[in-house]
Amino acid sequence: MTKNRLEAFSDGVFAIVITLLILDIHLPSDEVLTLAALAPIVSHVFAFALSFVVVGVYWVSHHNMMHFMKAVDRQMLWLNLALLLAVVFIPFPAALLGQHPTEPLAVILYGMTLMLVNMTGTIFWLYATGRPHLRARGVSPSFARLVARVHSAPILVYGTAIVLAPWSVYASLALFVAVPAFFILPNPLLDRWLASAQAATGSEGSG
Amino acid sequence: MTKNRLEAFSDGVFAIVITLLILDIHLPSDEVLTLAALAPIVSHVFAFALSFVVVGVYWVSHHNMMHFMKAVDRQMLWLNLALLLAVVFIPFPAALLGQHPTEPLAVILYGMTLMLVNMTGTIFWLYATGRPHLRARGVSPSFARLVARVHSAPILVYGTAIVLAPWSVYASLALFVAVPAFFILPNPLLDRWLASAQAATGSEGSG
Amino acid sequence: MTKNRLEAFSDGVFAIVITLLILDIHLPSDEVLTLAALAPIVSHVFAFALSFVVVGVYWVSHHNMMHFMKAVDRQMLWLNLALLLAVVFIPFPAALLGQHPTEPLAVILYGMTLMLVNMTGTIFWLYATGRPHLRARGVSPSFARLVARVHSAPILVYGTAIVLAPWSVYASLALFVAVPAFFILPNPLLDRWLASAQAATGSEGSG
Amino acid sequence: MTKNRLEAFSDGVFAIVITLLILDIHLPSDEVLTLAALAPIVSHVFAFALSFVVVGVYWVSHHNMMHFMKAVDRQMLWLNLALLLAVVFIPFPAALLGQHPTEPLAVILYGMTLMLVNMTGTIFWLYATGRPHLRARGVSPSFARLVARVHSAPILVYGTAIVLAPWSVYASLALFVAVPAFFILPNPLLDRWLASAQAATGSEGSG
Repeated sequence: MTKNRLEAFSDGVFAIVITLLILDIHLPSDEVLTLAALAPIVSHVFAFALSFVVVGVYWVSHHNMMHFMKAVDRQMLWLNLALLLAVVFIPFPAALLGQHPTEPLAVILYGMTLMLVNMTGTIFWLYATGRPHLRARGVSPSFARLVARVHSAPILVYGTAIVLAPWSVYASLALFVAVPAFFILPNPLLDRWLASAQAATGSEGSG
Repeated sequence: MTKNRLEAFSDGVFAIVITLLILDIHLPSDEVLTLAALAPIVSHVFAFALSFVVVGVYWVSHHNMMHFMKAVDRQMLWLNLALLLAVVFIPFPAALLGQHPTEPLAVILYGMTLMLVNMTGTIFWLYATGRPHLRARGVSPSFARLVARVHSAPILVYGTAIVLAPWSVYASLALFVAVPAFFILPNPLLDRWLASAQAATGSEGSG
Repeated sequence: MTKNRLEAFSDGVFAIVITLLILDIHLPSDEVLTLAALAPIVSHVFAFALSFVVVGVYWVSHHNMMHFMKAVDRQMLWLNLALLLAVVFIPFPAALLGQHPTEPLAVILYGMTLMLVNMTGTIFWLYATGRPHLRARGVSPSFARLVARVHSAPILVYGTAIVLAPWSVYASLALFVAVPAFFILPNPLLDRWLASAQAATGSEGSG
Repeated sequence: MTKNRLEAFSDGVFAIVITLLILDIHLPSDEVLTLAALAPIVSHVFAFALSFVVVGVYWVSHHNMMHFMKAVDRQMLWLNLALLLAVVFIPFPAALLGQHPTEPLAVILYGMTLMLVNMTGTIFWLYATGRPHLRARGVSPSFARLVARVHSAPILVYGTAIVLAPWSVYASLALFVAVPAFFILPNPLLDRWLASAQAATGSEGSG
């Protein structure tokens, strides 16, 4: 299994998941089409758009991680499948969130699924960067640690969203929106961290 | 993220969207199969075929745009995802149009979704061609402007279709058909514009 | 648009269509699971397996055609999309055939869809091989004509199946099975034709 | 048809199948969302996760097999499609297993489908490695036989699961879990077999 194959297969899965999300939005076929009939669809559109962006960020993040690996081994293959398993699961809690947007249980399941993606992603990254024959040249221990922290930080945010859900699902939903926004919007903090970790690479070495 | 990856991922999404459209066409499972039972399916087939062709034109147009870019940056990645978000949304208004082909609201939602695709596509194009390190050599400002105009012109057509919908959905549907026809049928006007803009490239330069 | 892109996009569509066919096979969720409850599924499995093989043959056939083309132009792009439109439509008549396997109307719609695929495929082939700047070296007029005949012959078979449907759907279904069998089973007749057409290539030339 | 095309198409089908599995998990849209309402979903999640891992192992196994082939011929193309037909079928028995996890019939159909995948896969492997112009250099007869045995061994396990199903579906399900675990978990036995077969390659030769 080469790195290219793994990436192409993972890309395929990401592309299918991101597109399948739309299947959750539909009007019962016997319904008259009025603005009132479309009202319950608003929460489905929100869950769709949020999940689309979340999966999009995971896709970009998967590529960024692969960029710092020069090879894959058997274990990485299975860790990658575990990551994809969590990603492929997303449409189910997304559909629940679309159906029951103010139900704490829907919010909790959504948050738990995203936690699982970030957990498997962090393990995947730590496994690969902890092995000199897998990580690319120039990946220093300090850079690997920083990326692991950035990748695992959302676990805390999603954990907070889960705890808040019984009090205010809106606070939880705001946290779900905040995570992809942090990665998509121009982010001087993130840029500075990455730059300083990369600068440190020279002195620590890459082996 | 290389340009190739972005294209391959986008191609995957376009291929899945174009194929998922067929899922909207089906007969209730307890229905007896007669020509009369198939009659309500005609509008679904129309919505399917129209949307297939529309997504096909967007796919070709996406490639044509990428052809004039030599690199992609972080912002383009997110702009491309915004474009794909709008494309992935198409099956929902397409299903509404199939269910309620003479309902102005279905026509309006369909038109708004296509407007959104052309808007995000135009922004994507203007962003990339406005930056010398992203646009390919030989893309002159006048060529970039012409393509932006050609790509955003359908926004006006769809806007007209939306305004006309409460008076005559057939006029709106005719406009929906006219846009892909303009791009697919041999089009001397479009060819002349592109040729003259390309000729102007030499004198204006590409930097 | 390069030939490679066109092939990759078409491959994606073929792969999605061939896989979506399985979505038509399911048991109503409130049904008790017994062999008797599974009985109505047999016709769905037949329609699935037949359509899977039919789409598989179209995929192989698409590749074989592309193998004899050295470039693609704008018109081929749209002809290819017309071909894919017909292929993407297959799951709908396949589902009808699974639901109503002994209903002439289902058989007729299935046959008409396959006729459409072979028609658009033949036009695609004739267009490309009729233009020296598109066809690969070594594609003689006689070879192009033979392939066109082989590719359009199923149109007659499907036409016969459609005509026979009101008398005996089993005769029609046998013809549907016969076409892919002709292309998949070892076929000395087909091999001899292709060999002799290729031998004739040398004398007729390729331009 | 090149080996690369065959692999890319097969990868696409594997990626779509593995992702479609999630479509089976959903809550009826009129259901109130409570933990009790989610209870029946547990067996669907089990069937989803098991099938995801099973398809993942088949995907890895397909690649491992292709790695030892240097070319593909017409027959391999159809054998590969037969293998994919069985793989594409998996979501149907997976859905049955999710709906009726303690029903012997669901377990039997699931086991029979997986048997079919391993049978077509073994035939595919034996066909390719039995022909010197298809197998890669360094594939000795003893290595080909060992892989065939490893690939066909699950047929016996699934057969046992089918026989046990009327007595204890839990024993059958444990066997379904055991097969992918055998391939995923570190496996000194499997490693020793493969190493010794590869060592034998040198003395037996590759032609």
